[in-house]
Amino acid sequence: VLSWDNAVMMPNGGAEARAEQMATLSALHHELLTSPRIADDLDAAEQGRAALDAWQAANLREMRRIWRHATALPADLVEQRSRINARAEMVWREARAADDFALLRPHFEEVVRLVREVGAAKAEALGLEPYDALMESFEPDARKARIDPVFTRLAEAIPSLLDAVLERQAAASAPQRPKGPFPIEAQRGLAVRLMEALGFDFRHGRLDISHHPFTGGVPDDVRITTRYSEEDFAESLMGVLHETGHALYERGLPAKWREQPVGDARGMVLHESQSLLIEMQLCRSRDFLTFAAPLMRETFGGGGTAWSVDSLTRSAQRVSRGLIRVDADEVTYPLHVILRYRLEQAMLAGDLAARDLPGAWNDGIRSLLGVVPPDDRAGCLQDIHWPAGAFGYFPTYTLGALAAAQLFQAAKAALPDLAADVRQGSFAGLLAWLRDNVHGLGSRQSTDEILTAVTGEPLGADAFLAHLETRYLSDGD
Amino acid sequence: VLSWDNAVMMPNGGAEARAEQMATLSALHHELLTSPRIADDLDAAEQGRAALDAWQAANLREMRRIWRHATALPADLVEQRSRINARAEMVWREARAADDFALLRPHFEEVVRLVREVGAAKAEALGLEPYDALMESFEPDARKARIDPVFTRLAEAIPSLLDAVLERQAAASAPQRPKGPFPIEAQRGLAVRLMEALGFDFRHGRLDISHHPFTGGVPDDVRITTRYSEEDFAESLMGVLHETGHALYERGLPAKWREQPVGDARGMVLHESQSLLIEMQLCRSRDFLTFAAPLMRETFGGGGTAWSVDSLTRSAQRVSRGLIRVDADEVTYPLHVILRYRLEQAMLAGDLAARDLPGAWNDGIRSLLGVVPPDDRAGCLQDIHWPAGAFGYFPTYTLGALAAAQLFQAAKAALPDLAADVRQGSFAGLLAWLRDNVHGLGSRQSTDEILTAVTGEPLGADAFLAHLETRYLSDGD
Repeated sequence: VLSWDNAVMMPNGGAEARAEQMATLSALHHELLTSPRIADDLDAAEQGRAALDAWQAANLREMRRIWRHATALPADLVEQRSRINARAEMVWREARAADDFALLRPHFEEVVRLVREVGAAKAEALGLEPYDALMESFEPDARKARIDPVFTRLAEAIPSLLDAVLERQAAASAPQRPKGPFPIEAQRGLAVRLMEALGFDFRHGRLDISHHPFTGGVPDDVRITTRYSEEDFAESLMGVLHETGHALYERGLPAKWREQPVGDARGMVLHESQSLLIEMQLCRSRDFLTFAAPLMRETFGGGGTAWSVDSLTRSAQRVSRGLIRVDADEVTYPLHVILRYRLEQAMLAGDLAARDLPGAWNDGIRSLLGVVPPDDRAGCLQDIHWPAGAFGYFPTYTLGALAAAQLFQAAKAALPDLAADVRQGSFAGLLAWLRDNVHGLGSRQSTDEILTAVTGEPLGADAFLAHLETRYLSDGD
Repeated sequence: VLSWDNAVMMPNGGAEARAEQMATLSALHHELLTSPRIADDLDAAEQGRAALDAWQAANLREMRRIWRHATALPADLVEQRSRINARAEMVWREARAADDFALLRPHFEEVVRLVREVGAAKAEALGLEPYDALMESFEPDARKARIDPVFTRLAEAIPSLLDAVLERQAAASAPQRPKGPFPIEAQRGLAVRLMEALGFDFRHGRLDISHHPFTGGVPDDVRITTRYSEEDFAESLMGVLHETGHALYERGLPAKWREQPVGDARGMVLHESQSLLIEMQLCRSRDFLTFAAPLMRETFGGGGTAWSVDSLTRSAQRVSRGLIRVDADEVTYPLHVILRYRLEQAMLAGDLAARDLPGAWNDGIRSLLGVVPPDDRAGCLQDIHWPAGAFGYFPTYTLGALAAAQLFQAAKAALPDLAADVRQGSFAGLLAWLRDNVHGLGSRQSTDEILTAVTGEPLGADAFLAHLETRYLSDGD
């Protein structure tokens, strides 16, 4: 709630007091978690594991996992990290605005030094490779050895697929785009209507405005945010639908296990799979836009070619070689992630120095995507993650996209009427299926176990690549 | 922040989770405060008291006071109280809506039983009479022996003064009232403009909407709320100005002592004195309305007699024998408080049983104010305080009104240009004076010490009664 308020409500002058409040809660949390009593309780509970049912046993396993992470780092390292990352994040904002990597560099060198120290300490405590140990904070059980072949396959398959998609796209006329201005109140009204259709319950959530869209709150009070541009309603709307996917997951977590570790979302891969299933798989599809187009026309008084299902779908599925990850389409997105995945491992291993990052970035994005940033703002300064110390997070975006494709494929197989339902704006069947097969499971099983149970396969690239082929190189969906 | 959010932002479905969050923080707070380490630290600090400066010594005294209150009650009594009060508060909402005291009665009996238990435990721990011990939670050093003669004087003076005021009022024509509807956005705009004029800094605060107006947040991020009626802009506006007085106090607390007990507001008497100084003493005065009337006319496009300074002032100073405390004018308000002050002491002493409350209430309000409630909704069911377990709170409203009159009298003496400044909308001098003489002192001294230093007198009724005479029985202010 404090974070949500910070991003959505707080006046600027409250920043210092808020940072103090959050640091106090963090410190209390860490102190409680690492107190000897907790260790004793965990040991005692594990002695009695035989008496636990599956949920209880999973809960205990998750408690132990959280405890291992909390105790892996000495308190002074935790404190140092949060101070240095907060400072680097602040400087990053300036450096990005001024396109001045040199300004960030000394702070970023400190961040990388600490990441390496944290990685080593966590590796030691968890018995993992340092990069795996870092990924663990975001996605339990994520392992480089599992991800490498998947990402290699994507890096091999996507560039030629991208060529084909762009060639096909160029062969047709560009879709006309609806012309604004689109009043913000009307955009909000449409967003609320579609959120409700998808199953978002406003008795248990809100939609607000923040500079960067996010999902916050708790399962019984899920809060998503967006930002509006009067020139383009689709960007904000797709952002809202993306966050709605996150929100439906949170809301659907097992109510019986609220505030217990096993009741939490499994990890960032499944979380991102839910936002991308809703946004990319569902809402950018021709079926969904068949349902949504009349509502869009009604909301903004639109008419003519630009507002046809065909134009709206082709706009929603437009692909391009862009420089900015957050603006990327689903075809090129994995390439942005793979670049970061490689670079952050090189920095963690000490093979890439902070001062060499801009060059390595530009080389990498050229070789993967065929474009070169005109400046670092459109290059290695574009994301907050590294300055904020989040190494090992980026892969979860693309792993989430893969999981989304697998899950949506399985949902279509399980729900034969899904396409027809979607065209009529009926999503109850899909939501129930997600509740049963993903949301309601919380953290009882691993991501791979959850995926295998419902799709027959652990996390992989097949469904995702098949989806790209279908949507972008055949008659489309 | 959680409380503010609860009242202003939270969807209904979040209530249970929020209650859990707040209970968890409360329990942690209590546990930390009552841990043996704190007792040892306090003892050690008191050993070294000689080395402390005045602020540090006061801070230590306040720490000890907070500690004494926290340790006065056994944990199970605290837990029981919060459970029973929360339940009674919920039932009270129903009972008030249904005008059904019998519905509340069994819960209220439990509340009273616990208040008596709490009073006895606190009396024992603090070495005070039970009622004094209860008042201490809201106003440190409040003592029945000091308040009784002051309230007796008010109870003697006000009824005849009220007769004279009403007679004088009846002799003149009733003021015309501006006619609505008054659009809510326009009301908010006017409120913001006047808040800013008074010194409210929106970089460090917000104005929002809630069912019951209140001031929340922290000194660097003070949040006030109001509610709007399209029929009457004055009620909401005066509410906003009242909360602005609370907000200016919070914002002016000594920055050097943030998050330290000595940096907190002194107590509810000075807090209420600040809201009433701004609302009653300042903003309902002819001088203030001379400044505000043109802004009101401009905001709502008003014109004619109803919008004259004279009509607006006479409306703002209208007196009547009403039944509802929160709607009461400043002449009759003390009578509402004195009734509650007497009744809650009788309940605490065991001299008045819960079942006899409605009758005692109606007898009391008739004898003090000459009116009889048609039902308990307009009688003993009107306030949330007792069902919520807040015994000893009511007197602070009237003590605050007395302090406001004393302080404003002193401010006028210290600032010879005040009246002229106010007519021109210049409040910087007044705010600086309040910062120096009240806000910036935090809890360094007692309420009586603060008042004596600046007014030459401890808390008393002279200035207040003189103010009533001047405003309502002479040429007015």
